[in-house]
Amino acid sequence: MNSEWSLQQTYFSAQEFRASEGLFTQGNGYLHIRGSLEEHLSDCPQNVEYRRKPTNVTAEKFPNITSRWGTFIAGFMGKHPILNSQIVNLPYVLGLKIFHDGEALDMVHCEIASYSRQLNLRNGVLSRSFVWRTVSGPIITVRFERFISSTHKGIVVQRLKLSSDEDTNIQVQGGIDADVRTNGYDCFSEVFMESAGSNKVYCKVKVDGYSMGILSELISDSGDWEYYQFSKKNGLASIFELKKAIEIVIEKRTELKKIGLEKEDFLADFELEDLYSLTYENLLEEHTKQWDLKWRDSDICIENDPVSQLAIRTSIYHLLRTEVLEKGVSIDAKGYAGEAYYGRYFWDTEIYILPFYIYTHPMSAQKLLDFRINTLDGAKENARKYGYSGARYPWQTDIHGRECCANWQYADHEIHVTADIVYAILHYSKAVKSSYLNEASELIIETGKYWLSRISWSENNSTANLLGVMGPDEYTLVSNNNAYTNRMVKLNLELSAHISKLTGKNNREIKMFEEVAQKLPIPRKGDLILQCDEFETFAEPEFDKYWQDRSKPFASQVSQERLYRTKCLKQADVLMMMYLFPNDFTNQEVKKAWDYYYPYTTHDSSLSLSIHGFIALRLRMHEKAWEIWRKVSMLDLDIKNGSAAEGIHIASCGATWQLAVFGFAGMKTSLETDILTFDPILPKQWKSMSFRINWKGQKVFVRLYHDVCKIKNLSNGNIQVNVSGARGKLNADQEAVFQYRPDVEIEALEEVTR
Amino acid sequence: MNSEWSLQQTYFSAQEFRASEGLFTQGNGYLHIRGSLEEHLSDCPQNVEYRRKPTNVTAEKFPNITSRWGTFIAGFMGKHPILNSQIVNLPYVLGLKIFHDGEALDMVHCEIASYSRQLNLRNGVLSRSFVWRTVSGPIITVRFERFISSTHKGIVVQRLKLSSDEDTNIQVQGGIDADVRTNGYDCFSEVFMESAGSNKVYCKVKVDGYSMGILSELISDSGDWEYYQFSKKNGLASIFELKKAIEIVIEKRTELKKIGLEKEDFLADFELEDLYSLTYENLLEEHTKQWDLKWRDSDICIENDPVSQLAIRTSIYHLLRTEVLEKGVSIDAKGYAGEAYYGRYFWDTEIYILPFYIYTHPMSAQKLLDFRINTLDGAKENARKYGYSGARYPWQTDIHGRECCANWQYADHEIHVTADIVYAILHYSKAVKSSYLNEASELIIETGKYWLSRISWSENNSTANLLGVMGPDEYTLVSNNNAYTNRMVKLNLELSAHISKLTGKNNREIKMFEEVAQKLPIPRKGDLILQCDEFETFAEPEFDKYWQDRSKPFASQVSQERLYRTKCLKQADVLMMMYLFPNDFTNQEVKKAWDYYYPYTTHDSSLSLSIHGFIALRLRMHEKAWEIWRKVSMLDLDIKNGSAAEGIHIASCGATWQLAVFGFAGMKTSLETDILTFDPILPKQWKSMSFRINWKGQKVFVRLYHDVCKIKNLSNGNIQVNVSGARGKLNADQEAVFQYRPDVEIEALEEVTR
Repeated sequence: MNSEWSLQQTYFSAQEFRASEGLFTQGNGYLHIRGSLEEHLSDCPQNVEYRRKPTNVTAEKFPNITSRWGTFIAGFMGKHPILNSQIVNLPYVLGLKIFHDGEALDMVHCEIASYSRQLNLRNGVLSRSFVWRTVSGPIITVRFERFISSTHKGIVVQRLKLSSDEDTNIQVQGGIDADVRTNGYDCFSEVFMESAGSNKVYCKVKVDGYSMGILSELISDSGDWEYYQFSKKNGLASIFELKKAIEIVIEKRTELKKIGLEKEDFLADFELEDLYSLTYENLLEEHTKQWDLKWRDSDICIENDPVSQLAIRTSIYHLLRTEVLEKGVSIDAKGYAGEAYYGRYFWDTEIYILPFYIYTHPMSAQKLLDFRINTLDGAKENARKYGYSGARYPWQTDIHGRECCANWQYADHEIHVTADIVYAILHYSKAVKSSYLNEASELIIETGKYWLSRISWSENNSTANLLGVMGPDEYTLVSNNNAYTNRMVKLNLELSAHISKLTGKNNREIKMFEEVAQKLPIPRKGDLILQCDEFETFAEPEFDKYWQDRSKPFASQVSQERLYRTKCLKQADVLMMMYLFPNDFTNQEVKKAWDYYYPYTTHDSSLSLSIHGFIALRLRMHEKAWEIWRKVSMLDLDIKNGSAAEGIHIASCGATWQLAVFGFAGMKTSLETDILTFDPILPKQWKSMSFRINWKGQKVFVRLYHDVCKIKNLSNGNIQVNVSGARGKLNADQEAVFQYRPDVEIEALEEVTR
Repeated sequence: MNSEWSLQQTYFSAQEFRASEGLFTQGNGYLHIRGSLEEHLSDCPQNVEYRRKPTNVTAEKFPNITSRWGTFIAGFMGKHPILNSQIVNLPYVLGLKIFHDGEALDMVHCEIASYSRQLNLRNGVLSRSFVWRTVSGPIITVRFERFISSTHKGIVVQRLKLSSDEDTNIQVQGGIDADVRTNGYDCFSEVFMESAGSNKVYCKVKVDGYSMGILSELISDSGDWEYYQFSKKNGLASIFELKKAIEIVIEKRTELKKIGLEKEDFLADFELEDLYSLTYENLLEEHTKQWDLKWRDSDICIENDPVSQLAIRTSIYHLLRTEVLEKGVSIDAKGYAGEAYYGRYFWDTEIYILPFYIYTHPMSAQKLLDFRINTLDGAKENARKYGYSGARYPWQTDIHGRECCANWQYADHEIHVTADIVYAILHYSKAVKSSYLNEASELIIETGKYWLSRISWSENNSTANLLGVMGPDEYTLVSNNNAYTNRMVKLNLELSAHISKLTGKNNREIKMFEEVAQKLPIPRKGDLILQCDEFETFAEPEFDKYWQDRSKPFASQVSQERLYRTKCLKQADVLMMMYLFPNDFTNQEVKKAWDYYYPYTTHDSSLSLSIHGFIALRLRMHEKAWEIWRKVSMLDLDIKNGSAAEGIHIASCGATWQLAVFGFAGMKTSLETDILTFDPILPKQWKSMSFRINWKGQKVFVRLYHDVCKIKNLSNGNIQVNVSGARGKLNADQEAVFQYRPDVEIEALEEVTR
């Protein structure tokens, strides 16, 4: 298998395993399962009861355990005893335990050789093979393979192949384990289990208003399956004769199906029953075809740098895996690959993840925004609770739009998410569907009303101030006139005014929208944009003194109190604004901001570095940009540091895509231009970079070299293109080659004025 | 009974009962028990399991229940599952249930007449009598009486008298109920119960490293006591013949005794066993004598205003009740009369409560400060945890000096407590024992070191700033250079320098103490002292719009976020500083501060109004001062508003005393003067006010009228006195009369310059 399409492991490491479970998560947008072992590990109980204190979200503490199961259905949430609601870690359905002569197969305790595990990014198939030198003699070759069907939404398909170097017997158990806690809490108010025929088992868990029904089927040519059930586990067990060098094959198919509590659960309703005529190969084939379609519009090819190639494909794989299928859900902060952040939705979706979908799978992009429109009532209720008008989106939302963040500093003060959503709606409407502004009109106006009630006028009414705000940089507790927030709100209000005019709403309010938009200050001191009014009053962070171990976050080495009273930044804030509003600022201002804030920025948030990558490119700091690219794109691949242990940094996947397309390829977004525009700055390490883009409904294929850019129009109509100032028009199917200017150093840009 | 010495109730009200339980708390400095009913109420389970979220301390939510038991031993703390440690609500030992013909005595469900309950403040005896018209006919007169012995530390003594208008039988049960939760949590890891002889029962509960042994004895002339035990309750029951008009008497005596887990609990070790020869009357007599001694040095007599008289005596009663007996404990925020604030210790002790003891019971005052010296190691550990040198006292301390506050905004940022302690030490050393500075020298130097590591220098080193601080006003989240904190820290550092010089510590550090003390800014704008650097940037609180119901706290009507971004104050902050450092500020500055801050102050904290009372007196705003006195002194007496439901506002008791003595009597503290000085401003509603004061070891008796002040020297030596500028010297036993000047209106003070 091509290593540019595959995540591979050639050894089993208990230390690294949990990170690989996160990284190897499979899914189809609906059902997601972490890359755990079919046979599991001993000494890894998944039912440990614990409760995390709702302290700092940044520094959540998880029990140190080698393997952590994770089976999630997008949007299937239950109660958390302290923290309102959280995603539910469902019963583990992948279990296939193997016993030989009383010895249980176990990667830690058995003698294992020729270990190999790989996740095929092209179709999301996870396979593992190894040789098991059993205690009693026979050498057994084991091959696991599994995928979550991309054509049958709740279904996971598994195959196990076994062979031996001598005749022997082997026992296989396959079933469902419902003794699973979510963040240390048992979400299941009831667990019901029963046999469902000769080769099927059934389990139903009750969670708040719903149940999840799980039907598992075991398929084998030989063997007699016998039902077992104890505690909260059930399944089927059978003994198989293994004839020397003759492989036996066992399949397991499982379906998870949400059932309303009122409804009876008829097994006949399960789709699994309809698939009996399809072989494993049939199912795999249709599954792979579906993945081919997903990749067709979204792959990025990089020549001459297999590391970057694999990294960008890994990011895209997870973005494709989490692509939302159904109404009423979004993409959670850990990409449905872990329990961290409780499966809730953040601004990450709109700002970091959305652009990938806008320019590759626009219909999926809309689903993410529809989620916000659907939860507008929750946002209105949230505004009301805080004593404001209009609609204010929660910092951490559940599927109902309720605030779920237990840390008031974020929930109360990190209000930019509301404006971020409007920014994203504007982006989508410009890129894909201008009529979407009408669909979102109530949201746009209601959020505008919220801002009107949230501002404080200065004494002479010369400025409208947002006081007591936390910006993206969560290491500044509350401040006045956070530049990022104010700029976002300005956009929000301008759009509120625009939409109000179209819908003929009251003039007084329109005037207010416009006036406040105009009077929101962006604090500055000469050319330096200030993160907030009081930024300069904060103390120096003294990193040399307090941040001794740079391999660990700054926040893990100092008290929160120090974070809050010093100039240290968790993540880009002013630079973030400059990335999202590039035309508002001169290069000189950007340079000034970089020079001032970069030394203060800890990048303790995974959302930080990527943004610095863009700014470095804008400032033509190629080496810095490349260094950042390496770190950002490799984040979850860093198995040794356990980066993906609690899930995928899905926002970082989106940022990796943006850094490739908006950064290196220099593509301008629809917010900046109506004409497909590239201003490429290809890394010298790459020979070429190619990808497809959906530009306002038209698809183009782009291949970039260091001096030329080839663009092919894949659509039926004409399309205008601008590459570093050279404009052209491509007819349907036409390909054109553009020369582009060499890099310009930042020094040469100093004459640019505002 | 004189109503100026007694809290009386003439009816039973379920609505008001919980507040009266708090207000009627009895205690002897060691053991404290809320004023609950001996027979209890039905439908009031005390074992409800719940867990409060560690959200805003200000707005704690308690289950709405008619009666809440509370049995506390000072400093006997156990674990809370989320919040580190808390005081333990011990088993209820007062139980005396009465049954007639199957009918249980119950204040809510039975027909009760001639109800009367009173707490005798002079000796802390709580008595209740009423007539019970039983369902089956007999009219039974019931008289309960009880006190917590002031001469036998763990012992509570009860008496029950019963009589009937016709011959009948009655059953009485008396025992121990260990099915009690503390803040909804079961602190007892083990409950052991047994019979302990014919008329005694024993119970032992295990809490962390200790056990509490409880021995109860029932004494009666007739009746046979039978042991019962079920669940976590045990006791003795007996049936008594009630002959018409012949009263029977039942006594119950209980001892609570702390037992190390290693130790066996020998019942013979219980003091209770030694009291068998003493009658109820004997015990009451020695108890009352002890209380007489307590009152002798601390009573305040007010002529012509029984309301104020009862109010000040109620405050003094609770201060005397909570007077610390043993090493290693202090006085918790609710005066051991409820579970709120988890029985932890705050700055309330040093700033609000301590002065009462300094000037009436100086040895008890020292115990409170000794507690801080004893927990210096905890404070050092706390500084270290935050990354600082020296010692930093916790915002909410347990008996080990550990931070127990689960709300980081207070724990991390409300740092003034450390300097408050040093202020109190200085106060005590000047008033009572100058050598105490030596005893506290390590504390004084270590706290100074903490401040050196906590400050941030301005760029040119012209100011040493304390950034990210919460002052006494908890509605300002964090701010720079909180005036109150900076002023306190200045005192702390000056004393650190002074002590360092005496002990010959290193010169560089002394220089730093002095330099930082000098360079801590008190922010100001002309004559207006600013609460903090940024105070003027906050928004207007718009009380008219958002604080519609002034009978409830502002905080209960708006979100915390609004509190944090507006100018609203929870309590006095700049005015608090002006009260504690009166000579630092001119009347003009004080007036300016009052005019500016008073309209912004919500007094949501019970610590606020009293301070405004002093300032109003300083500014000769007599009516305002009187209005404040009424509110402050009546706070816990306000049964209708349930003020004392969760315990006594013991800091407010201390403030009431201060407002009387430092306010109306105008006594200057030892921090201000070495000569006993009064500058009286007696309310026109009073004819006279008299009290004893311990001035530097000498006792004087003071009686104030509107124009003259009589002072009698009760000590053996001479004492100098100054009354409104008139100086005199009193020999031993000498009494003198001073005329003092009429009030001067604030307008007349305008010429005073700084």
